Amino acid sequence: MSTAESLNIIDCTIRDGGLVNQWNFGVEFVSRLYETLNQARVEYMEIGYRNSPELVGEVGIGPWRFCEEKVIRKAVPVKKSTKLSVMVDIGKFYVNEIPPKDESIVDLVRVACYSSQIEEAIGAINDLHVKGYETALNIMAISRVNETELRQQLYKVRSSKVDIVYIVDSFGSLYMDDINRLTKIYKRSLPGKQIGIHAHNNLQLAFANTITANQAGCRFMDSTVYGMGRAAGNCPTELLIGYLYPKYNIKPILKAIEELFIPLRELEEWGYLIPYALSGQLNEHPRTAIELRNQTEAKDNYLEFYEQTTKDKDRPLQVAR
Amino acid sequence: MSTAESLNIIDCTIRDGGLVNQWNFGVEFVSRLYETLNQARVEYMEIGYRNSPELVGEVGIGPWRFCEEKVIRKAVPVKKSTKLSVMVDIGKFYVNEIPPKDESIVDLVRVACYSSQIEEAIGAINDLHVKGYETALNIMAISRVNETELRQQLYKVRSSKVDIVYIVDSFGSLYMDDINRLTKIYKRSLPGKQIGIHAHNNLQLAFANTITANQAGCRFMDSTVYGMGRAAGNCPTELLIGYLYPKYNIKPILKAIEELFIPLRELEEWGYLIPYALSGQLNEHPRTAIELRNQTEAKDNYLEFYEQTTKDKDRPLQVAR
Repeated sequence: MSTAESLNIIDCTIRDGGLVNQWNFGVEFVSRLYETLNQARVEYMEIGYRNSPELVGEVGIGPWRFCEEKVIRKAVPVKKSTKLSVMVDIGKFYVNEIPPKDESIVDLVRVACYSSQIEEAIGAINDLHVKGYETALNIMAISRVNETELRQQLYKVRSSKVDIVYIVDSFGSLYMDDINRLTKIYKRSLPGKQIGIHAHNNLQLAFANTITANQAGCRFMDSTVYGMGRAAGNCPTELLIGYLYPKYNIKPILKAIEELFIPLRELEEWGYLIPYALSGQLNEHPRTAIELRNQTEAKDNYLEFYEQTTKDKDRPLQVAR
Repeated sequence: MSTAESLNIIDCTIRDGGLVNQWNFGVEFVSRLYETLNQARVEYMEIGYRNSPELVGEVGIGPWRFCEEKVIRKAVPVKKSTKLSVMVDIGKFYVNEIPPKDESIVDLVRVACYSSQIEEAIGAINDLHVKGYETALNIMAISRVNETELRQQLYKVRSSKVDIVYIVDSFGSLYMDDINRLTKIYKRSLPGKQIGIHAHNNLQLAFANTITANQAGCRFMDSTVYGMGRAAGNCPTELLIGYLYPKYNIKPILKAIEELFIPLRELEEWGYLIPYALSGQLNEHPRTAIELRNQTEAKDNYLEFYEQTTKDKDRPLQVAR
C-alpha cells in the first residue's frame, strides 16, 4: 500500500554525519545540501545539534554541534520549502537558551534521550511546544530497553505535547521483525502521535528497517545522503527516494553525492565495516568498534576484536533466531 | 520462528566473486576458503562454474570458470563436511562433459537459465539427476518475469527431478514485499521442492531479502564472504551467520575476511555504489553500471549516468510504491 502522501523524510546528514567529522562542515557545504534537499523535495533537513557549548566540548568542534541562530542563517539565507530541524541531547542543553519559534528559523526541535531520561525529556518538550516549535522525542538505544519498561515510559509520553516519537536503533542491531514489533507497540501506546524511525546500518538493514517501519505505520523516516553517519552510518537518502518514486527527485541528490560526498568519503570513514557489523550483532554501542577503526595497525583485526568483545560474557548476547 | 535446523547456506564467493576477478583466485585461496567454510559449519561451497572452455572465452580467465575435476581436487584434497557445488549456464556447457557423480567430488550442480530457457534447463537437470547429483534450477533475472509467465514456467519444473528451485534477483531490484510474493508463488507452484534465494545488494537489501525469503519458507540461502560478487555483490555470509547464531561459527569467517578479503578488496571493486543502486532502482542489468565503474574519469558521474540510462524511456521503469 502506498503511504507516500503523508510521509516525511528528515535528512540528518549534517547532524548525524557530524559525529563522523566533528561537525566540521563548511557553510558552503551545508548551504548546498539545503539547496539539494529543497530540489529533491525532502521535507526536513536536520542541520545539527543545538547543544550548549558550556555543557559539551568545543575544542576542534564545528558550528553544527551548537547551531547558533546566526550560523544557521548564514547557510540558509533564504528559507525554502524544506523545513529545518535541530537536535538537543538531554543533559547537554539549556532549554532557556532556545529562543521562541517566532525568533528562530528552526521549525522542529528533536529531543534525544535514553529511556531512563524520558521524564526530563517530556519537560523540555512541553517547554519547546510552548515556545511554538514542532517537537520530537528520540528514544535512543531502544534495542536495550525491555518491553515492560518501554510500555511504561511510552505511557508517560502519551499525555505530553510531543508531535513525533522515534524508534532509534542506535546500535544498528534490530532486525525487521523487531522493527515491526516496536512500531506496533509505539502505535498502540501513543494514539494521536506520529511515529518515526532512525536506523543504523551495522547489519546492512538501515534501509530495510526504514521501509519496514513505514509499512507498519511510521510516517517520519530519517536518512542521510550516501548513508553518512557515525560508524556504519544510516539509511541512505538516495535509496529511500528511489523506493518512494516519484514523490521525490533523485537528481539533485546524485549531483550532491558526486560533488560533495565522494570527496568527503575519501577523508572520512563511515559505512558497512566488520567491527560495526559485530557491534550490531552483539547489541553493543559502536564505541569500541570506532576506537578499533581509529587504530592504524590493528584496525582490521576482526577476530581479535570479536574475542575481546565477547570474552567477559557469561552467555551469548545475541538472540538465537 | 526459528527455522535454523533445516537451513542451508551455499557460499558462492568463488563462483559469483569470480565475476569480479575473472575467476583468478589462486588454489591456496580457494583451499583456505573451503577450510574456513568447514570450520564455520557452512553446508555448501560453490567452487565455480563448470562451463565448457569451448563455449566461453578462455583468455585471461581463471580455472574456477571451468572447474575441471583435477583442479577442484587440488584445492580440496580432503573432502570434509562442507559439500561442493558447481554452476552451469544454459548454452555454455555440455552435460555429457560432466562425469557421473561417483567419479566426481562435486555434490550439487546448479543450472542457471533465463525463464525462456527453462525447458532446456529441465532436460539438463534430469540428465544430471540420472548421473547422481543433487540439482538446483536458478531462474535468473526474476524481476523481469511477469507472474503469468512465471507460473507457467514453474508448472513445467514441477514434474522435473530438480531438488531446489531458486529465486535469483540478478538485478538487485526486488524489495522485501516482492520476495515474499515470489516465495509464496514458488512454494505453491512447486510442492515437494526446496526453494532457494540468491540476492544482490544494489539497494542494500541482499541480507534483508534473504531473511525475508527464509521466513517465507526458503531453506537454501546464497551468500558470499564480505559480500563479494558482481557489481553490488551479494548477501554477506558473515551477516547471515550472525543472524542464525548459534547454528554457525563466525570466527573462521572473520579470520578469512581480515586475511583474504580485505587485501582482495584493495585490488577489486564490489559492493554498494551509486551506479549499482540506480540499476537496481531501474530494474536494469548492471552491465552499463559496471562499464561506468571501469572508466577512470567518468566513474563518479552519477547524474549523467542516470540521465543516460533513463533518457529513452517513455515512462518510468520503477513501480511507484
